[in-house]
Formats: sequence, C-alpha cells, structure tokens
Amino acid sequence: MERVNEDNGIDSAVHQHVEAVLRRYLAERRADLPELAQTFAAAVDTLSDFALRGGKRIRPTFAWWGWRASGGEADGSRAEAVLTAVSALELIQTCALVHDDLMDASELRRGHPTVHVRFAAAHRAGAWLGEPERFGMAAAILLGDLALAWADDMFTGAPLSEEMRGAAREPWLAMRAEMFAGQYLDVLAQSEGDESEERALGVARLKTAAYTVERPLHMGVALAGADADTITAVREFGTDIGVAFQLRDDLLGVYGDTELTGKPAGDDLREGKRTLLVSLGLSYADAAGRHADADLLRGALGDQDLTQDTVERVRGLLVEVGAVDELERRIEKLTTSGMAALDAAGLAEPGRTRLADLAIAATRRDR
Amino acid sequence: MERVNEDNGIDSAVHQHVEAVLRRYLAERRADLPELAQTFAAAVDTLSDFALRGGKRIRPTFAWWGWRASGGEADGSRAEAVLTAVSALELIQTCALVHDDLMDASELRRGHPTVHVRFAAAHRAGAWLGEPERFGMAAAILLGDLALAWADDMFTGAPLSEEMRGAAREPWLAMRAEMFAGQYLDVLAQSEGDESEERALGVARLKTAAYTVERPLHMGVALAGADADTITAVREFGTDIGVAFQLRDDLLGVYGDTELTGKPAGDDLREGKRTLLVSLGLSYADAAGRHADADLLRGALGDQDLTQDTVERVRGLLVEVGAVDELERRIEKLTTSGMAALDAAGLAEPGRTRLADLAIAATRRDR
Repeated sequence: MERVNEDNGIDSAVHQHVEAVLRRYLAERRADLPELAQTFAAAVDTLSDFALRGGKRIRPTFAWWGWRASGGEADGSRAEAVLTAVSALELIQTCALVHDDLMDASELRRGHPTVHVRFAAAHRAGAWLGEPERFGMAAAILLGDLALAWADDMFTGAPLSEEMRGAAREPWLAMRAEMFAGQYLDVLAQSEGDESEERALGVARLKTAAYTVERPLHMGVALAGADADTITAVREFGTDIGVAFQLRDDLLGVYGDTELTGKPAGDDLREGKRTLLVSLGLSYADAAGRHADADLLRGALGDQDLTQDTVERVRGLLVEVGAVDELERRIEKLTTSGMAALDAAGLAEPGRTRLADLAIAATRRDR
Repeated sequence: MERVNEDNGIDSAVHQHVEAVLRRYLAERRADLPELAQTFAAAVDTLSDFALRGGKRIRPTFAWWGWRASGGEADGSRAEAVLTAVSALELIQTCALVHDDLMDASELRRGHPTVHVRFAAAHRAGAWLGEPERFGMAAAILLGDLALAWADDMFTGAPLSEEMRGAAREPWLAMRAEMFAGQYLDVLAQSEGDESEERALGVARLKTAAYTVERPLHMGVALAGADADTITAVREFGTDIGVAFQLRDDLLGVYGDTELTGKPAGDDLREGKRTLLVSLGLSYADAAGRHADADLLRGALGDQDLTQDTVERVRGLLVEVGAVDELERRIEKLTTSGMAALDAAGLAEPGRTRLADLAIAATRRDR
C-alpha cells in the first residue's frame, strides 16, 4: 500500500490522502466498537480491507477538484475538513459495491473474492449450520449497512462550518437517493427485459452520472461557496461526463481486458445488464434485418452459462451492426458538450485543468 | 390510519405524533425524487406503507420520555425538533426489519407479506426474466438502504441547536454500530450453533437492549442536556429493561399467539435463533440427564420443516426443565434493578412515571 508523504500537499496526491483519511477513520470506528462486539470487529476488518484495497477514488477526487476549482484552499483546516467530508463518498461506494456484488451474485471484485463469497467460504470452511450462501448474504448486507451508516457519520463529523455543511447537504442527500434509484431501475430493467434506449440512459444518468460525477462535483463546489450559475454549469459538465463514463463502462463490460478490469469477460452480458450498448445493438440488428444476431444477443443476456465462444460472437455482432461506433460517437459528443460547460463555469486553475484531465481519463480509460 | 388531532400535545400521543412526522417526511422525500426515478418512487411507496403500517414506535417513545424526564419541554420549537430527531429512529428500524426479514427469509411481518416477498410476487406476477427471489432480494436490499440513508437525513435535518446536535451524536453513532454488531452476532451464533448463555446475552445486550432502549433513552436525555451521572443511570435502566424486553421476546417467539404477534408460531425455533431460552433449555436438559429432550430441541433449531407437533413438544420440555421459570425470574430481576437505576436518576415527572410504565409494558407484553 502506498504511503502518503506528510510533506506532500493534498493536490499532489488526492487519491492517497483520501485513503489515509479513510484508513484512520475505519480504525477509529473499529476501536470504538464495544468489548461485546469483538467478533463483529473481525468482520469489520474484512470490510475495511475491501474499502482500502483499491478503486479509483473517483468520487472524492472529482469533489476535491470541484472545491479547488471554486476557490477552495489547497491546505489548512478548511481543506482538511473538506478532505474528510469528500472521503466519506468512498464509504457510500463501499456499501454500493458490497450490496451490488451480492445482488448480481458476482464472485470477483478488484480481482479478489467479493464480500458475500468470502463469508460463505468461511461458513463452508467451518462446516457451520445452515446454508453458506445465506450466511454470506447476511454478512454482506450487514457490513454494507454499516458502511452506509459510517459514511454519514464521517460526513456529518467533518469539522465544516455551519455554512459549508448547509451548502453540501443538498448534493449529499440527492446523491444517495439517486444512487439507490438508479440501482433499482437497473435491476428492474434486467427483470422486465426492458430494451429501450430511454431506460438505459435513465440508469446511466442516475446510477453513474449523478452518483459518480455530478453530485460529488456539486458537493465540492458548494463547499467552496460557489454561486448558483457555477453549480448549474458544473452539474452540466458532471452529467455529460458521467454518462460518457457509463458508456465507456458499457464497452469495458463487454470488451474489457479481465487483467485490467478485475472482472470476468462478458460479465455484463451474463448479468443481463440492459446497457445502452445492448439497447442499440438490439435495435440496430433488428433494423438491419439481422434477426439471428438480435436473438443471439437476447439469448446471451442473463445467461449464467454463457460460453467464451458466444461472448466472442456477441462482441463481433455489436461491432458489425454499428453499436460500438455509435457508443464511441456519443462518448465523444458528451465529452465535447461537457467540456464546453466546464469552460463556461469560469473556474479557477489548477482545478479547471485537473477536472478536464479527469473527464478525459474517465471517458478514455481501459479499466 | 389514526389521525393526530393538532390540538393534542405530543405527550398525550407520542406514537401518533411520531407517525405524523414520519408520514410527512417520507412524502417530502418521495416528492424530491427526480423525474427519471418515478418507477423507483412506486417502490418507495411500498417502503413507506411498511414503515407507516404499525409497530410499537418503542424507540422514539423511550427517547421522547427521556427528553421529557430530563427537563425537555412538552411543546414549542425545541420539542418539535426533538420529535423529528427521535422519529428518525423508526427509519433505522425500517431498514433493520426489511433487511432482517430478508436474512431470515421471513414471509410475514405485522401480519403482511414482507418486502422481499412482495417484490418477488410482483416479479412472478409479471412473468419477468430471472428469478423472482433474486429480484425480491435486490428490492429489499435497496429499499432498506434507502431507509437507513433517510434516517440519517432526517436526524441531521432536525432543527436542533449545535449543542443539542453534539450531545445526541454519541448515542446516534453508537446505536447504529451496536445494532449491526448485534445482528451479526445473532446470525453468527445461529451458524456456529453457539449454545452458550454468554453469546445469547451478548446478542440481547447489543441487538435489543442497546438499540431499542438504552441508546434511544441516552439520546433523549442527552438532547435535554442531562449530566454524566443522569446519563449513566438511565443507560443502566435502559440496559436492564432492554435485556428483559429481549427475554420476553424469546418467550413470545416460542409461546406467542400468532394472532397477536403477527408471526408464525415457533418461528424463532425454525430460524434457529440461539436465544437465552434455548441456551438454558439445552443446558438444563443436559444437566438433568434428559438427553432425548436436548436432542429434540437441538433438532428443532433451524428446521425449516418443523411441525406444529414438534413445536408443542419443545414448548412442553422448556417448561419442564425449568427454562421458562428461569427466564421469568430473570425478567423480574432485571426489571427490579432497572427500576432502581431509574429511581436513582433523579428524573422529572411526568417523564419518570411514563418511563417506568414503558418498562413494565415492554417486559410484560403479549405481542
């Protein structure tokens, strides 16, 4: 694990500073657990390992640069308080991932067994009573809940001024409700077999754009006291870049390199995710009269026994019908409009440039 | 649904005032959901119905009378703010129940289908894709998460003074961590088949006493600015009464009238709950050389196909070995020591008497 050099400012290594703050917070809360709950503390260590093991820390990073770009200081007591408040976003993400992996029955996350899988394995290894999967589910639900409660505690415990706290409250509230709404719509779309572009974009808007980029940025600039016009402009930027981020994710979910993404190839197809890539693939195949291709794709969605061969065929057909090109075009277009909104926001350097760099990285990544 | 007469003070109907505040809060948050999330809003209605359908509102009621007994006003703006803050406890309870029912695979709660069962049924009725149970699980996880996030939003949004907010923070943080710890220890004890009295009492302390009585009371008296001695005394009262409350629950889980409890008879046995009643039953049966009885009880724990006949036999043997009498004795003893702590706390009327009445009701109830 990389260590933070205390001499380095937050600007030079947001990612590591966020992890240092998180590590400290999790250790404090673990130490506060009552004597009676020491068995639970061991379970909390699994949660902490999971939260600290990696991840891009994209949400606190966007929030931090929002703060800086709206005139927030690089260091000092206000900056430290903001760092704590935005680091709390990672604990929401911990809850979201732990619960999401359980809902999707995912085996791997960041190249390691998921939380419910780890606890089911402990149950199996101990030859305990009942079903291992049921125990794994219970542990994952409770640890995800704890992460969500601690996210709030960390946010509300950050030593912000009353004014700053009040300004950050709207995005904090909206973000969590929008995230759960987006996850629900995602699951519902998978169940209903909804193939519409509208639903796929709605999920991308709520589950990814609002939660991952727009609201963290909103939080950052609001903490710095940004005016309504600035908030509107950065939210536009955040929404466009956030949707583009999701569309890139759609592509990685089908074409990504397992070595880089840490997830099995074709996982999105196996889970039956109704992404925009899938929606366009189906409508383009149908429109071109390629009904066998459309059937192949429909059949692949949610197929737990999907073979590598079928994944390859789906990859080919999505390119052939033009869905991949269209997704790349939309990512390009959203990036362009997002950048225009960013330029219109009148933000300060170096924050403005860092946000632009983050936007490019989020939409052109390979992991 | 009972309506609150606006002319009535909070003291005269805490339960209804809590429900009125909750109903208003849930309606506001639903109205704030983005246009894109209207499908989710329909799911939130199921959550709201669940939260508003009933329940004893025991946590906010203990907290309210803690506030009053430590000199908090019966009405006015501070009292209204406290009512909101303590009503948030019910949303934590909503999360706990929705997730607990899922973990325990319970079909009924308060005489109605549980949340995961309702969503699985909707999936089945719509002949949707994938497994109905998996959809029910996802919906229950996400709605429980939302309730937990909204609990925090409601608590932190209550217009308390900075001093009051600071005083309530410790019990608010501790309560949630202790509740999840208690639930985890409960699930772990079921899995490990832990029959020790120590584990059963640990679960009762964390899952019920701390979460249901001690911390809500702590919150109430802290909001009123109680000193450290008063806080210690009411926490002692809360712990004793809370454990007694759980022991009463143990008895109701085996002997309760389904019509009154809203849960199937013998549900605790079927779920394999390692309660103190079970722990004492096993050790007393073993000590008396009644090994066939001990085996019968062990065999009943976690048996999904438990028959009514076996439930009856278990009921009989728990009485015969003296476990039921011992539980009644302990409830009596805890009630006595709790009352002594209450008397030592030097609280104000009418709060003191109402807390004493609540304690009696919690430990002598039949539902």
